[in-house]
Order: sequence, then structure tokens, then C-alpha cells
Amino acid sequence: MSAPSYQSLSAALEPVGKRPGGGYERAAWTGADLDCRAWFTDAAQSRGLQVERDRNGNLWAWWLPAGGAEPSDAFVTGSHLDSVVGGGAYDGPLGIVSAFAAIDALRESGLEPRKPVGVVAFSDEEGARFGVACVGSSLLTGRLDPDRARSLRDGDGITLAQAMSAAGCDPAGLGKDVASLHRIGMFVELHIEQGRGLVQRDAPIGIGTSIWPHGRWELRIEGEGNHAGTTQLADRHDPMITLASIVLSARAQASTFQSLATIGRVSIEPNTSNAVAASVDAWLDARSADEQTLAALVDAIDRSARDHAAAEGTSISMTRASLTPAVVFAGAAREHLLRTLGPLPELATGAGHDAGILAGHVPAAMLFVRNPSGVSHAPAEYAAEADALAGVDALAAAMASWIE
Amino acid sequence: MSAPSYQSLSAALEPVGKRPGGGYERAAWTGADLDCRAWFTDAAQSRGLQVERDRNGNLWAWWLPAGGAEPSDAFVTGSHLDSVVGGGAYDGPLGIVSAFAAIDALRESGLEPRKPVGVVAFSDEEGARFGVACVGSSLLTGRLDPDRARSLRDGDGITLAQAMSAAGCDPAGLGKDVASLHRIGMFVELHIEQGRGLVQRDAPIGIGTSIWPHGRWELRIEGEGNHAGTTQLADRHDPMITLASIVLSARAQASTFQSLATIGRVSIEPNTSNAVAASVDAWLDARSADEQTLAALVDAIDRSARDHAAAEGTSISMTRASLTPAVVFAGAAREHLLRTLGPLPELATGAGHDAGILAGHVPAAMLFVRNPSGVSHAPAEYAAEADALAGVDALAAAMASWIE
Repeated sequence: MSAPSYQSLSAALEPVGKRPGGGYERAAWTGADLDCRAWFTDAAQSRGLQVERDRNGNLWAWWLPAGGAEPSDAFVTGSHLDSVVGGGAYDGPLGIVSAFAAIDALRESGLEPRKPVGVVAFSDEEGARFGVACVGSSLLTGRLDPDRARSLRDGDGITLAQAMSAAGCDPAGLGKDVASLHRIGMFVELHIEQGRGLVQRDAPIGIGTSIWPHGRWELRIEGEGNHAGTTQLADRHDPMITLASIVLSARAQASTFQSLATIGRVSIEPNTSNAVAASVDAWLDARSADEQTLAALVDAIDRSARDHAAAEGTSISMTRASLTPAVVFAGAAREHLLRTLGPLPELATGAGHDAGILAGHVPAAMLFVRNPSGVSHAPAEYAAEADALAGVDALAAAMASWIE
Repeated sequence: MSAPSYQSLSAALEPVGKRPGGGYERAAWTGADLDCRAWFTDAAQSRGLQVERDRNGNLWAWWLPAGGAEPSDAFVTGSHLDSVVGGGAYDGPLGIVSAFAAIDALRESGLEPRKPVGVVAFSDEEGARFGVACVGSSLLTGRLDPDRARSLRDGDGITLAQAMSAAGCDPAGLGKDVASLHRIGMFVELHIEQGRGLVQRDAPIGIGTSIWPHGRWELRIEGEGNHAGTTQLADRHDPMITLASIVLSARAQASTFQSLATIGRVSIEPNTSNAVAASVDAWLDARSADEQTLAALVDAIDRSARDHAAAEGTSISMTRASLTPAVVFAGAAREHLLRTLGPLPELATGAGHDAGILAGHVPAAMLFVRNPSGVSHAPAEYAAEADALAGVDALAAAMASWIE
């Protein structure tokens, strides 16, 4: 029943920020992100929903009960509109499109809400531009210091404060916003699955159980820059050799600890083809099912990195840049989903989400929609329409049982 | 006897293009390179030498016999003034400083030349800015097509033609210059050694026997960009894993073939810390004592690269970007050095030089000066003054026996 509104909502958003070479580029507060935000406002206003932007730049649309006062004890659902560079169409937008489509479905069914429904688009979830993820939800909950947020810089040296100002959003207002937060009775984030858990379980949708603890470590490897054509192998102290050994041992240790370890960002000096590199910076992303395992994994990688550096005569330092504790989606929101939707596959995820940020403050839960490719943050990310509509139906059912 | 002129020449050049963080930045046709060229003109003119710039931007200074006509059958020596990014003070400039100092020494001794002496500063030897090495000497000898040279672009999109025009050098004149070339009776390039061969032989100077054949191959590894926090290890097609395996096997194969193989330049897409990379471009620099060994080395690396790619489910292509055949410094010029200087250590080198470009056209040879660090293309590159003066004396002796 909700197919037409899902289709028209998706179609209107589809071209925004699409790159000629494939994938999307909707980094926070860029033109493409602002176009997405304008789409949100249009979608809400065309449905007669009341739209507001909170002090932290998050957008809210409200479906209020007849004679509705200020929202409270609301069923809030939503996600984010920004993307990583070259990301897919579903990560973030699927949750917002589904939220509007679920409201459409309940209205078509004639439901008159007794409690408010909120649709939220959190700003800057991906952190693709300013390097910090979940900025909008982290400011809202007081997790992120507003001074630090304002001074974050993008690759061109533009601060978040400047970018928000340019978009007409006063950065002086940033910071914890208890009033906005406390309108939420329950928060459910619907999200494209970022792996193949639902493919393996042959199910269109599932419920999130937890977010793995994860962290980022910076590795600095210093060797000796030298001429590639004249320096004998025995005389080399090549940080690329050390890096290569670490990339392979991180993969092996991750396997041993049934965890994830990734080195996907590297900076090489001087990065010329006829020189043995002088130094390499690399970033390790590591995630495990629990914090003890994560600590053991990173310790094992650190120890083997030191051995590899010693073997090549390079020096290495490994510094923790961030560590996000585990989030467990237990309690009222997850129970509400299980009660209203019946038994569904339950899945942990290694990815951070705004729902994880909110979980420490309000009842929060997640719904995942099957992704046949299992690919995330890349154009192959995908949800079949039938699966997306199953997500809309589940969201509508959870919403209905809260507001009826 | 030549210490004061060596010292004053070096001192005048020393601050040009020096970076606050260490090393030099004198890329071709930048301000620092033009300052080096102005130094050359000053050094020549203050000695009463006749200075000219040829059609390809190379600078020449001539010490002509009394009543001297146009130069012919000249003893030409020199090197280059440009540097790699972060290079040392000696690679290139030592040969030019030593050339002027050798002339000073012969003049002080009262020698009246019967044949001309030329000092040459070849333009853009390093290729640090436009990606092609030995541009000035390769244009002069007709090895490099002038249309291709003019259209080379730097990282900012500026063409070599534009950069030369901005420096007042008309790029319309580029191309083979038989008239300039045929003035050379013999060419000797004095150069800082770029390894520890003379350290091992406990000798201040040595004679070049050959330049190893060398080439550059571009590796394109395509994997599947994905989310670092949600993609199980078994589902990954991570080009960084393939790269790491290739870096290590290239080192191992180079050792097996008593050759050199280096991967010092890598470009990763999207190069973000929370994503499994989608693709990696890497450049392999490989050099061997002879062309058959080089071909066997590269073939072995290529085969193991395919195996590593297959193991990770990535795809790989390896394309030859350049291949420079071996240069053997045999014949008149090397014999002249051996005859005038007596027995000296003889060394092959893996580095390309303007002398190697000229060797196919005129008698050419090389003199190396000991480098205690063995380091090249980096600030630790170094020649003790006593060794540099031994180089000046050798150059003066070779010069004298040609022009007396």
C-alpha cells in the first residue's frame, strides 16, 4: 500500500549529489546536502507536517495529534541525509524516506494519532567532511563539545562553524539540547544493512541488538627516504615494507579474534615512484564484539607492528585517535519492536549510528533492511523495493502501536 | 688549491630553495630553480665565461682558447641544478660547483687552453615536477619528442610549455639540437654517489661503468569499496591486502634477482579510515644489472601479483610506463679518465643521469664522489669537503689533459 509514496520520495531524492563516475557525494553542509535538506522540508510540508531545525542543525518534521500541543512522548524515527564520498543511495536516506512513507501508510489507513510522530534527519552523521561522525546527534546529547565541533575543519580549512553559518544555521546555538531530546518517547532508526547478515538469514528485515565497540588508531612509521635506484636492499629502512607487513598481520589478527581490522587510509612521504619512502602514516580501524576482545586485538596488532618495524629498522608509534564503547539496544524500544513485529532476525553491527548515540538518553532501537550486495559506503549498496517496503510496513506497525 | 672557490661557490648556492623542514625543493622552472640558474649565470660571468641558454633551456658556460672561435671538440662537464622534493644539497649541484672550481684551479695553475671547456646545467633532470626525468638532455639529443615535452603537466595543471614561457624561455624552440650537441668532444658528469659503493671501497672518488636498465610499472588493483565496520573479512576484496602482499613479494624477488624493486608511490581510493579501499594504484620501480635480469624480475613480480590478487578476489593490471635500457660507459671518455686519473674504483649505478642520455651521441663518462651516508634524494646525502676537492682535482686533471 505504501509503494507509490516510497517510489515518489526516493525518485525526488535520487539525483541529488549523484556523481558522474558513480556513487553519491553529499558531505555535510555542502550544496548537495543542502539540496537533500530542502527535499526533507518539501516532503514534510507537502504532507502538512510541521518542520523545524533544532539548534544543532538537525531537521525535525512532526505529525501531531488533533489539537496537538508541543510534542512529547513521541515516536521518533529517522536517520541522516549526508553521505560519504562515493557512497550509496540508501545509507541514511532509506530511514527518512521510509519514515515519511510509513506516515503516509498510516494516514491512508485512517489512523488518528494520539501521540506525536517525529521524523528526524540528523546532520553530519558520516563525518566525511569534518572527520567526526554523528555530529548532530552527539551535539544534541551533549556527547560532543560545541567548541570542539565549531572548530572542526574540512580539507579546505573551512570550519564547521563557517560551513553552518554559510547555510544560515547559527553555530552559536550548538550544544546539548535537553528540550529537543526529551520530546522523544522512543527512537527507532531504520537503516540499510551494511553486511550480509539478512542475506544469510534469508529475511527482508531484522532488529539491531548492539553496535560493536570500535576505535581508530594512527600509525606513524618513520624510515629513511632514499633513492630507489641506488640504495641496496640491505641498506634500506623502508616504511612501506613495515606498512605492508602490518596490513597483513592486522588482517590475520582480526581473523584470530573474530573481529574486524582495516587499513584503508595511508599517507606516504614523499610518495614518488623513484624514492624509497621516508615515512608513512596509516590509520587502523578496529572493531570487535566486546571491549576486552577489541583491546586484545589492538594489543596484538601493536606488538606485531613493533616486530615488523624492528625487522626493517624503521620506527613506529601507534596512537589511539578515538574509541567508541559498545552500545546494546536492550530495553523498552527493542522490546516494543519485538512485541509489535513478532520474531525477526536479530543482528549486531560494527557501524556507528545516531541510534547508538541516542541510546544512552532515550529508548532507542534499530531496524535493518536486507542489502543483497552486503556492500556499504559504495555504489553497490542496495535494497530491493519489496524489502524496502517490508521495512516501511514494519516501521508503520511499530509507529501505529505507539500512537494509537 | 681549489678549496676557496669550492667553498664560495657552494656557500652562494646553499640557501636557494632550502626548506624549513629540511632538504631542498628546486623543482624545474620554479622560483628556486630560476634562482639556481641565476647563480650559474653569476658564477660564469664573474669568471669571464661566455654564457648561453640553448633552445631546450640548458645553460652553458664556455672557457674558450685565446682568440676562441665557436666551441668545438670541447671538454664539457656539468650536471643539473634542479632537485627532487626534499632532496639533498649535492645531487646535481656538486657536478656544476666542481666544474667551475676545476676551471678556477687550472687557471690559477696558469694553463692556457687549446680547446674549449664547457660547463653545462641540464634543465629538469629529476622530473620531480613534470614526471619525466632528464628533460633537457633528452630534448637536446632528440630522445624526447618536443610536442610531448611541451604538453607535460605538473600537479597544478601547468604545462612545461607554460612554465618555460613564464621563465622567459620560448618553448617553440624545443627539440633535437645537433649544433649544440656536436660541440662536445667529451662529456664528463661528476656526481655525488647515491649508494655506499665508495664507502665500502674506502675511496673518495670512482669512475662510472654503467647505468643499470630500469623501468617503471603502474599497478592498478581493483577491489570492492566497503564499510570497514560491517564487512566480514570473508566478504572483503580489499586492494590494500593485495598491495601489501605485492610490496613484500617485490622486495623478496628483488633479493632473489640481486636487483632493486621499490614501491614508494601509492594512490588509494577513497583513502578514508573507515572504508575498505575500492582501488589502489601503485608504481613499481625496478632495476637490474642487465636487461634480461630486469625482465625476469618484473615477470616474477607480475606473476606473484596475479596470485595475490586472485587470493583476495581483486583484479590487477600491471602496465609498463617506461623502460630505460642499460647504458655502458665504455669507450673514449672512460678510457680518458682511466688514463689521466690512474686506477680508480669502478662502479655501476642504478640511477639515471644526463650522462647516460648523452652516451649514445658523444663520448660520455661519469665520476662519483663518496657519500658517507649512502643516502640520496634526502637531506642526509653528503660529501665531505676533502672528498669533494678530490673530485675537483680529478675533474681538473681530466680537463687539463684534454685541453692542454
